[in-house]
Amino acid sequence: MGSLDLNYDDESFSSRRQFKPLDPEEFRKQAHQMVDFIVDYYQKIESYPVLSQVQPGYLRTRIPQTAPYSPESLETIFTDIASDIIPGMTHWLSPNFFAFFPATVSTAAFLGEMLSTCFNSVGFNWLASPAATELEMVVMDWLANMLKLPKSFMFSGTGGGVIQSTTSESVLVTLIAARDRALDKIGAENMKKLVVYGSDQTHSMFVKASKLAGIHPSNIRSIPTNLHNEFSLCPAVLRNVVEADVAEGLVPLYLCATVGTTSTTAIDPVQPLAEVANDHGMWIHVDAAYAGSACICPEFRHYLNGVERVDSLSLSPHKWLLSYLDCCCLWVKRPGILVKALSTNPEYLRNKPSDSDAVVDFKDWQVGTGRKFKSLRLWMVLRSCGIANLQNHIRSDIRMAKMFERLVKLDPRFEIVTPRRFALVCFRLNPFPSSNAERTELMNRKLLEWINSSGQIYVSHTIVGGVYMLRFAIGATLTEERHVVAAWTLIRNGAEELLKGLVI
Amino acid sequence: MGSLDLNYDDESFSSRRQFKPLDPEEFRKQAHQMVDFIVDYYQKIESYPVLSQVQPGYLRTRIPQTAPYSPESLETIFTDIASDIIPGMTHWLSPNFFAFFPATVSTAAFLGEMLSTCFNSVGFNWLASPAATELEMVVMDWLANMLKLPKSFMFSGTGGGVIQSTTSESVLVTLIAARDRALDKIGAENMKKLVVYGSDQTHSMFVKASKLAGIHPSNIRSIPTNLHNEFSLCPAVLRNVVEADVAEGLVPLYLCATVGTTSTTAIDPVQPLAEVANDHGMWIHVDAAYAGSACICPEFRHYLNGVERVDSLSLSPHKWLLSYLDCCCLWVKRPGILVKALSTNPEYLRNKPSDSDAVVDFKDWQVGTGRKFKSLRLWMVLRSCGIANLQNHIRSDIRMAKMFERLVKLDPRFEIVTPRRFALVCFRLNPFPSSNAERTELMNRKLLEWINSSGQIYVSHTIVGGVYMLRFAIGATLTEERHVVAAWTLIRNGAEELLKGLVI
Repeated sequence: MGSLDLNYDDESFSSRRQFKPLDPEEFRKQAHQMVDFIVDYYQKIESYPVLSQVQPGYLRTRIPQTAPYSPESLETIFTDIASDIIPGMTHWLSPNFFAFFPATVSTAAFLGEMLSTCFNSVGFNWLASPAATELEMVVMDWLANMLKLPKSFMFSGTGGGVIQSTTSESVLVTLIAARDRALDKIGAENMKKLVVYGSDQTHSMFVKASKLAGIHPSNIRSIPTNLHNEFSLCPAVLRNVVEADVAEGLVPLYLCATVGTTSTTAIDPVQPLAEVANDHGMWIHVDAAYAGSACICPEFRHYLNGVERVDSLSLSPHKWLLSYLDCCCLWVKRPGILVKALSTNPEYLRNKPSDSDAVVDFKDWQVGTGRKFKSLRLWMVLRSCGIANLQNHIRSDIRMAKMFERLVKLDPRFEIVTPRRFALVCFRLNPFPSSNAERTELMNRKLLEWINSSGQIYVSHTIVGGVYMLRFAIGATLTEERHVVAAWTLIRNGAEELLKGLVI
Repeated sequence: MGSLDLNYDDESFSSRRQFKPLDPEEFRKQAHQMVDFIVDYYQKIESYPVLSQVQPGYLRTRIPQTAPYSPESLETIFTDIASDIIPGMTHWLSPNFFAFFPATVSTAAFLGEMLSTCFNSVGFNWLASPAATELEMVVMDWLANMLKLPKSFMFSGTGGGVIQSTTSESVLVTLIAARDRALDKIGAENMKKLVVYGSDQTHSMFVKASKLAGIHPSNIRSIPTNLHNEFSLCPAVLRNVVEADVAEGLVPLYLCATVGTTSTTAIDPVQPLAEVANDHGMWIHVDAAYAGSACICPEFRHYLNGVERVDSLSLSPHKWLLSYLDCCCLWVKRPGILVKALSTNPEYLRNKPSDSDAVVDFKDWQVGTGRKFKSLRLWMVLRSCGIANLQNHIRSDIRMAKMFERLVKLDPRFEIVTPRRFALVCFRLNPFPSSNAERTELMNRKLLEWINSSGQIYVSHTIVGGVYMLRFAIGATLTEERHVVAAWTLIRNGAEELLKGLVI
């Protein structure tokens, strides 16, 4: 506290705080300690069970019921993190994590996040942090360039991009933009006529976002897919469904096409789907959360063919571009429609640059008002790694997945269920092809439980087209070939024990 | 990469990546460098203009149009941060930042964020990270205890809490829960009958969230307030408006009451407003984003009186509890209603603990699916600081605000416009009380521009009840009395120059 003694108050200043929440030298000391703690965690990470083995409610019994009245030392807290927190973690960064889609990381992104936290800027509008807004614009254009998106999605063209937290938020805000544009034409009282379209493989967030936006639940279409089409949304089927809705007097609003579905990385064909959507004046969004990152490699870019015909595209670098959570990049072709739906203009935020329309105010591109300096992480990744290394990284993961796929194929007791396209292999144990479906499913459920309860690796599952399968997703940043080989050995051992009747 | 040589692939492995995105020793070295960079920034922060003085578009001319193909060194990046990023920052952590509400920080929260980033867990459900879910439950109960919330808002009682990113998200999800509960009763086709209520002082996010949720724009009530009521929402007026709506056949849905409005920290009286809301079966939410934190001090707790009658309450520790962005705590009395509206259950996320209903899956309490280990920051703050220091911190800020208020009052050319309750002082220059309102407003606009363009401090403004006023918000973590005194000196100097006719 300062020392200027003004005769200004009747309250005693004798209790003047000595509490300094941010003393720079104390910060230096403790942050260095935390860096070493983290490095220690990363070095030991393989020694922890990948999937936490604790029971529900484990923590409440270990922690006091109320916050402490007086400060506790960092040493005490470190001890508790080691004894109470780490055993309850499912270690997403373990090289033996093969579940869901891994969340990828890098030193560069960690540094970027430290810096973003450090500044703690609240960049709701340009003036509140010009660098935060402008760097985000630059980085979104950089990544758009890497993906060879048309200029119509770039700030240097006629569009633009913004970093959202999640795909859910990207879909929600574009859906609302589309909704409000439609209601302007047909009247707000016709909201119940609006229909949205996805496939039965579209991420569950789509149905949720549609409900949030007030789409009538009976107007959310989940169009069936099948193994014959490799679980991709068929444009002809979409057209039939849309035309039937139009014939009923309904209004087609929004199509969410997926490049790389969550269950099996199926691909909805963007170009022909966009034709259907364009014919009916629908907004079309491409959810490329996982597989979009692969499109920075020329050999995968064709999956985005037709993107010039869509309205928006989202992709999550936290999934495959080493950026840590959370980072979902959303590009839109006509930002004006988004801003019209999401803008606010309270007096206390008004300022000359915003009033002059010379700047972007990202609060009008998202749900919330406040926002961190979100682009620093991705900027640091792109600069520290460079495009070449990021391409290598994607290709390396895919090579390891091909290796795993080949190992599976070499074992006649196993089968690949859906085609591998990226770094996810969907397979199952099927030693008795004449066995009934339920028995095969049960066997695979048991195998998965055996694998995951070992703590040595973590694998997840899905059911698609009625078939229960294991999902082996390669991509955790620390994963090397040896981990993949060891994982396969473990899976085979599990299968052997199961087939010997040793697993109940 | 591992060395196991399997004969598995037709692709050359000669280009096997040497790229290691997360090499622990490299991480250690670079993260230590970043810590020192950040400490250096904090030590120098007073030397930068608080409000960035750059022009729109400044950054695009300084940065290449595309990401680099090859890696760049950390040294180069540090140089660019210093030359290109820092000059474009509005320095929210500067002790001379008095605009909006400051965003507060602490060493403890920084360490918590480092650890949260380190784990990079994606805690959509319990199993994906038991510690992340259970620590959040513990911390939400801790803070509820500190606020003396009834047990009906705690996990140890019959309710529970969750960390959202922003107040916008808290209002959006509770509004949707209320909406879906209402539509279950009256039918989804009656959405256009739902009405929501706030005052003209409710944060702009309320109108936005209501629109996002599909509330008909003509059914969003912003009930006028006035200086006579100190800009608080009058329960009798609310009752009249609600009853008029009911008489029209409309359905009252949701009331957002504010404890500490953004413009002037006005207080909507929770208890009598809740009575009106309860009488009409409305959901009532209390937005205590800023002032809620003060309620950890017994002398301010009365502002939450009546909270036992509301459905939900939100408060943002990033505003006053030293937690860095973003952290908005939301408590709900009946989590089941929230979960019913927001739950998803895709096969690929199914697991035994979730199916058994023995655990909390926070994906069903928020918009998105994925989420970071959000509670670590707040947990570290509460433990490292202790309740006593946090109370001291709140009181110290308020003492400084009282000091500033007294300084303003001592100068007859200035006046306090609305009563100071917490650490925000709303005042204006008004040397000629007989002067017309437009001239006074213009004078204050000029004064604000003069102050902010000096770069020495940053102050914001508002207009309430037609009166333009300056908002002097104390609370930046590094602010000491000397900064407040110096700021007042600067403001007086500005006024003097203005009154001498030297400022145009």
